[in-house]
Amino acid sequence: MEAELKEMFEDLQSLKRSLHDPSIHASIVKLQLHVEHLTGLAKSAPVRRTKVKDMSAEVVDSNPYSRLMALQRMGIVQNYERIREFSVAIVGIGGVGSVAAEMLTRCGIGRLLLYDYDKVELANMNRLFFRPDQVGMTKTDAAVQTLSEINPDVVLESYTMNITTVQGFETFMSSLKNKSFRPSKPASGVDLVLSCVDNYEARMAVNQACNELNQTWMESGVSEDAVSGHIQLLIPGETACFACAPPLVVASGVDERTLKREGVCAASLPTTMGVVAGLLVQNTLKFLLKFGDVSPYLGYNSLKDYFPTMEMRPNPQCSNAACLERQKEYILAKPARDAAAKAKMEAETLSAEEEALHADNEWNISIVDDSELETVDGTTSDALPEGLTRELPEADEFPKFPALGGTSTSVDDIDDLRRQLDALNAC
Amino acid sequence: MEAELKEMFEDLQSLKRSLHDPSIHASIVKLQLHVEHLTGLAKSAPVRRTKVKDMSAEVVDSNPYSRLMALQRMGIVQNYERIREFSVAIVGIGGVGSVAAEMLTRCGIGRLLLYDYDKVELANMNRLFFRPDQVGMTKTDAAVQTLSEINPDVVLESYTMNITTVQGFETFMSSLKNKSFRPSKPASGVDLVLSCVDNYEARMAVNQACNELNQTWMESGVSEDAVSGHIQLLIPGETACFACAPPLVVASGVDERTLKREGVCAASLPTTMGVVAGLLVQNTLKFLLKFGDVSPYLGYNSLKDYFPTMEMRPNPQCSNAACLERQKEYILAKPARDAAAKAKMEAETLSAEEEALHADNEWNISIVDDSELETVDGTTSDALPEGLTRELPEADEFPKFPALGGTSTSVDDIDDLRRQLDALNAC
Repeated sequence: MEAELKEMFEDLQSLKRSLHDPSIHASIVKLQLHVEHLTGLAKSAPVRRTKVKDMSAEVVDSNPYSRLMALQRMGIVQNYERIREFSVAIVGIGGVGSVAAEMLTRCGIGRLLLYDYDKVELANMNRLFFRPDQVGMTKTDAAVQTLSEINPDVVLESYTMNITTVQGFETFMSSLKNKSFRPSKPASGVDLVLSCVDNYEARMAVNQACNELNQTWMESGVSEDAVSGHIQLLIPGETACFACAPPLVVASGVDERTLKREGVCAASLPTTMGVVAGLLVQNTLKFLLKFGDVSPYLGYNSLKDYFPTMEMRPNPQCSNAACLERQKEYILAKPARDAAAKAKMEAETLSAEEEALHADNEWNISIVDDSELETVDGTTSDALPEGLTRELPEADEFPKFPALGGTSTSVDDIDDLRRQLDALNAC
Repeated sequence: MEAELKEMFEDLQSLKRSLHDPSIHASIVKLQLHVEHLTGLAKSAPVRRTKVKDMSAEVVDSNPYSRLMALQRMGIVQNYERIREFSVAIVGIGGVGSVAAEMLTRCGIGRLLLYDYDKVELANMNRLFFRPDQVGMTKTDAAVQTLSEINPDVVLESYTMNITTVQGFETFMSSLKNKSFRPSKPASGVDLVLSCVDNYEARMAVNQACNELNQTWMESGVSEDAVSGHIQLLIPGETACFACAPPLVVASGVDERTLKREGVCAASLPTTMGVVAGLLVQNTLKFLLKFGDVSPYLGYNSLKDYFPTMEMRPNPQCSNAACLERQKEYILAKPARDAAAKAKMEAETLSAEEEALHADNEWNISIVDDSELETVDGTTSDALPEGLTRELPEADEFPKFPALGGTSTSVDDIDDLRRQLDALNAC
């Protein structure tokens, strides 16, 4: 827009030079003033941040990754920058999926694949992420618009389609298999699939694709009354798949969203969906960057602030043939898995021993003799560094217990202590 | 911008009419094409949604409140629209406070008071809410810009200042006391204060103000290593105040943010901060709209997905004089509180009895005689409505247990049952 306005200003300038009528001159000057004003308006429009080549840990206000790279220094994550190698597919860009996508984008994930066929409506405005000016856009387009402004380093792929149709499912499968982002990656082209859909049919489609591709995925859901939700980790063959323990009653042949009484819709809250998205992406980060414990299942009951957990083994009678295949493979691979785990543990023990001998002492920890604790001026070494004060009185400022009538104040045995306590209680 | 471009187009039109040189004509037509192009660009710029007078429960895509009003129909909230009467003050518009503000805005809160003195930096982009194009703006200005676009129904008050200075604290106090939004409201002018600050000094200032005003507030925090956080409810006199159990070591006389080793900053994650903001605003909604249990304290340890809870009574030796005053009042008011609780319980019992007699039968629940369960065609009444199917086989599809050698298949007593079980286990 600015280049176009500059060109217009110059055209008006040459027009002014070629014409000599004062009234026309005045008209052109007026037009030029308009162009200058519009240039000012255009300049105040949003500026995008430029791409960043490497993630830096430098602590400056202009570094969008400083607070994330600090996770390494804090000892939480060993190599944060690995996040740029990972691809995550998010199916369903609604109240949970859109927030999950924004969190991963702000964390600097390598590549996001986004799937949804729905459009943004004003009725979605009670959840985070979409803005009223995006009403009418497809959710995938609106998401790409917002996410690319937030972090241009993330590779965004948008699939505006329904994965439960035959053609949609095929496109879904081939997009997961595409390895052009990281050709050296073993197995499928993505590291994790997040299911953030709101119906059974779509979950079963994700389940089918992941069982066929032997692809680890996480499922999420929020209840119709908006006050509870859950996340779940599904590893084909190792944990229960979505068909291993399906809901008892499901919609069939009709769109679940029409299977409602007239004029009734499910409730939703930005809080519950924000919490579920946060727990889901936290589990994703723990899974990808290998820190903390990845939860196999975590529920959220917001009325009681209760968070149930459980583990689900696969069902040997599962109705899903691909799941049964993965279960067989998992059992057959047990000896190899055990051997690898043993070798890894031995290697870690060995390297820990070596490290102990040659460790850098980054935190300046040293062994101090107890007798050195008393400093020259008689204060002990738990004196605080400059700028810190104790908020509670120090131990020696507490009033001493009064000597109890007739009883010695020195504590010799447990009976003595009990007597002192009784005397104190009697006060 | 559009009006200005229209005026320019018309000016060019009259210029064209008054001049007859073909080359000048061509220049003017070119300029008009530019204006038309710019008009198209201007028209695609954001449109705001209009204000809504009353919250409607109507289920249409254009209703921004349909999914929230559905909380009433789902039996979660009795009167959702009351949310428009409430004022919430948020101190600290950072990683937690900004998301809390967005959640409350999307929920249609009546009025938000926002306090912060900081500016938006690229280093904040690893948390939700602020956008790169807002870098350099104050956090309060950027928040008002985004929130008013999301929901123009919310009254936003922005205070760009530090509440820990003498003058800042006075402005903070008087803003909390201002009752012009709802003059009939008893006590202070706000219904809840949310502390979303990142330092001890600011928490103590919020604590002081709330103790003086007898104002209920909620505190929130996230650890420096980004992987845990908490929320806490503080009711002056009734629960521990922030000074009742202060941290053991605090910064004093220096800015806490400079009290760090060179080039080191705290880590932060959009996930942990999103979860803490979600739990905080969920607790806020439960407190304001009276549903579920309001948590006195809820922790979040993301490495283990562990959520500790506890309750803290006030400290009779608290160093805060206003806290001690509130504690005295709370003890003195006990008989009145007990009487009110008793009266309320009796009234509720009475109205429940009355309601039971005259209840509307919204869900069409009726008492059915067991003998009616068999329908004319012999199927039982647990046949599913159209569009629903059972995902698991029905009970009568399970294979019958084979008759066990010599034993009767009819179960007569517990011994018989045990024998059958042993026989099955022996298979």
